[in-house]
Amino acid sequence: MVKSVSVLASHSALDVLDGAKEEKFRTVAVAKKGREKPYQMFPVVDELILVDEFVDMVSEHVLRRLGDSVFVPNRSFSVYVGYNRIEKNFPIPVFGNRFLLRWEERTGEANYYRLLDAANIRRPETYRLGEPAGPVLVKLPESKRPVEREFFVAASAKDAEQKLRTLLQKDYVDEHSLEKISVEEFVLGAHFNANFFYTVMRKRLELHSIDRRIQSNLDGVYRLPAADQLEINPHVKYIEVGHEPATIRESLLEKVFEIGEKFVEACRRIVPPGILGPFTLQFIVTPELDLVVYD
Amino acid sequence: MVKSVSVLASHSALDVLDGAKEEKFRTVAVAKKGREKPYQMFPVVDELILVDEFVDMVSEHVLRRLGDSVFVPNRSFSVYVGYNRIEKNFPIPVFGNRFLLRWEERTGEANYYRLLDAANIRRPETYRLGEPAGPVLVKLPESKRPVEREFFVAASAKDAEQKLRTLLQKDYVDEHSLEKISVEEFVLGAHFNANFFYTVMRKRLELHSIDRRIQSNLDGVYRLPAADQLEINPHVKYIEVGHEPATIRESLLEKVFEIGEKFVEACRRIVPPGILGPFTLQFIVTPELDLVVYD
Amino acid sequence: MVKSVSVLASHSALDVLDGAKEEKFRTVAVAKKGREKPYQMFPVVDELILVDEFVDMVSEHVLRRLGDSVFVPNRSFSVYVGYNRIEKNFPIPVFGNRFLLRWEERTGEANYYRLLDAANIRRPETYRLGEPAGPVLVKLPESKRPVEREFFVAASAKDAEQKLRTLLQKDYVDEHSLEKISVEEFVLGAHFNANFFYTVMRKRLELHSIDRRIQSNLDGVYRLPAADQLEINPHVKYIEVGHEPATIRESLLEKVFEIGEKFVEACRRIVPPGILGPFTLQFIVTPELDLVVYD
Repeated sequence: MVKSVSVLASHSALDVLDGAKEEKFRTVAVAKKGREKPYQMFPVVDELILVDEFVDMVSEHVLRRLGDSVFVPNRSFSVYVGYNRIEKNFPIPVFGNRFLLRWEERTGEANYYRLLDAANIRRPETYRLGEPAGPVLVKLPESKRPVEREFFVAASAKDAEQKLRTLLQKDYVDEHSLEKISVEEFVLGAHFNANFFYTVMRKRLELHSIDRRIQSNLDGVYRLPAADQLEINPHVKYIEVGHEPATIRESLLEKVFEIGEKFVEACRRIVPPGILGPFTLQFIVTPELDLVVYD
Repeated sequence: MVKSVSVLASHSALDVLDGAKEEKFRTVAVAKKGREKPYQMFPVVDELILVDEFVDMVSEHVLRRLGDSVFVPNRSFSVYVGYNRIEKNFPIPVFGNRFLLRWEERTGEANYYRLLDAANIRRPETYRLGEPAGPVLVKLPESKRPVEREFFVAASAKDAEQKLRTLLQKDYVDEHSLEKISVEEFVLGAHFNANFFYTVMRKRLELHSIDRRIQSNLDGVYRLPAADQLEINPHVKYIEVGHEPATIRESLLEKVFEIGEKFVEACRRIVPPGILGPFTLQFIVTPELDLVVYD
Repeated sequence: MVKSVSVLASHSALDVLDGAKEEKFRTVAVAKKGREKPYQMFPVVDELILVDEFVDMVSEHVLRRLGDSVFVPNRSFSVYVGYNRIEKNFPIPVFGNRFLLRWEERTGEANYYRLLDAANIRRPETYRLGEPAGPVLVKLPESKRPVEREFFVAASAKDAEQKLRTLLQKDYVDEHSLEKISVEEFVLGAHFNANFFYTVMRKRLELHSIDRRIQSNLDGVYRLPAADQLEINPHVKYIEVGHEPATIRESLLEKVFEIGEKFVEACRRIVPPGILGPFTLQFIVTPELDLVVYD
């Protein structure tokens, strides 16, 4: 019988640790040196393993200490350890489907929008750079922090190219960023995250909560009166720094469950055995009450 | 003794069902076919009755199944079943005062602002279209979804007429919409909903929570940097799609209870026996710390 | 042994009263006449003392009734009773360090930014009026309600002077306001409050919650489409009227605890014995993921 639950100490680890303690599991957290404080301050970690870099997760001595635990992966695990290592060099039982993790990528063979298309879930249209289009949202990795992204809205293909040129001139992005650029339909509406849980034992999709991301400095920019925004002309950034809880209009829950079920079904088909456990869909609710899922 | 609680499955039904289960009642939900999923997914419904249209609530076979329950009305019940049927053809005991429901309307004899005036609660000034006024908020039903509304802010009466003309040209509103237009003082401040409960047994007004509506696409529009808003010039919509929890400055609670009590008192006088159970007041807090209730 | 907990009935008193009841203390609240309703409506006050003015807290007959209680101070207590009286004429045991309260001031010898500097916590740069600077945030007391403040953002020193002149002309501020003006670096990012508790008995810093202030009429201004803002040109106010709950990106918690610990350490050094109990740090998270604490 499973006695302990382990995590990489970042992203959503505290939630997992807190829940595991509540369910009487022993908990193990692998933290990066210099970032371990929260895992010491909240009384939810029984064993704290410190590593120099998160990639050391797959080293012999860490694996030995994780030995008899079940590991709950999160996005930081994917980003810092890497899909290949997770799939081939991480012999710890994972709660969830480790082969699904790489489908969260935005580009390449296994990518998130391909999964949404297979599920027949509406997502923003995507364009090639320069292709004529209405308002678009352009995303590409920063030059300095490749795990964070530059975002901008452009009224047209021409406007997009011009704004991109400015970013290049200011070194906010570089040639490498351009390889991972995405240009997509700008969907105007209210954004929500639906936090689901698919339980295989009960064969049931559960909706656990709804929340909404907070981005910096966007959050401060939109609180600037319009005249001041135009005067100061800030460089707008969309770095995720927090979340707010929310509820969604009850009559929209039908559609929320619908996209959840479609997503579960598509994952089962494309990356068997599909989703096990928690997953989140981020979407825009349009004024026509459509749900458009984005990455 | 009451053994079961019934609802029309929309709007705020899940909250009622959840509370009823917690209090050990049997629960009955009447859902529209194709919109029943949330009432199957959350384990709060003991008996689910499916109807083709919500108006079938008053049909013989549904009424028979609701027989020994107490029914908790919500806004969808009012909108889809209609006041006359609710008052005359719905022989199920209702938790609350069924004759108050029609006072939620914006126009006609029994209207919400008349109730607020009787309660001596500050509300936005209202104007006739074309009447000289400072900044105004104009609301009128959409041409295509008459239960949803177009909103716009106008700096002056002249500006309002011009913006209205554009909406007509684009078919967003039509002649029928104009019959239900409202032009009111635009009150600038922070919006809140206070969720009250008036208990007749304890003769007590309770404040259960505070939250704030989220509107689409407004929510996405204000997150657009000002320069992009001006460039893209989006058609702004104010469709309610969710809520966020909030707290209100403690020194404002005096005024919050005050408007709650005044509202209870006015309802008792005008639509005896007045309010029984839950009700919400939506208001703006101005920088002068006044509360202005709106519909 | 302590049997009762007392508060000045404003600001955050209901939270304290609620917690005290939960811990089985008797509770005493001193309310201003005409503002006592919330303390009667929520069942958390055992003894309600009414005063004409909050400053009557230090009168003989109120002190006698507070006699055997422990008093939990809040910001309204500081503002309405005053530091000198609190330090010299309030012989009731206080939960917390009463000599720290005056360090929440923005000007003078004992001021908040001096405390932050001693703690080596990043805060906005401050400038003299007229000193050349990039975008700045200017704050000064209102002419009519000196406990509330006018705020404005200015693109430059010159812009600041011009906007200040307008405020003076419109009597929003006056000569007295100018004595307490602050001009500081405008830091663009997402704002959060971290609500900490330092327990002396356990020698432990706890993070209890994160929330975010809501300001009027700013909250309504930013929901105005940019074109309407420019047209209506509202006088923007930043009066705190509520809060929203939030969570912060997990990888930022390291820095959140860091500023909490530094602040506790600096208070211990500068105003011994330092902080006892609850305190809040308000900060901006920049897109570079720095935390900048403000007053």
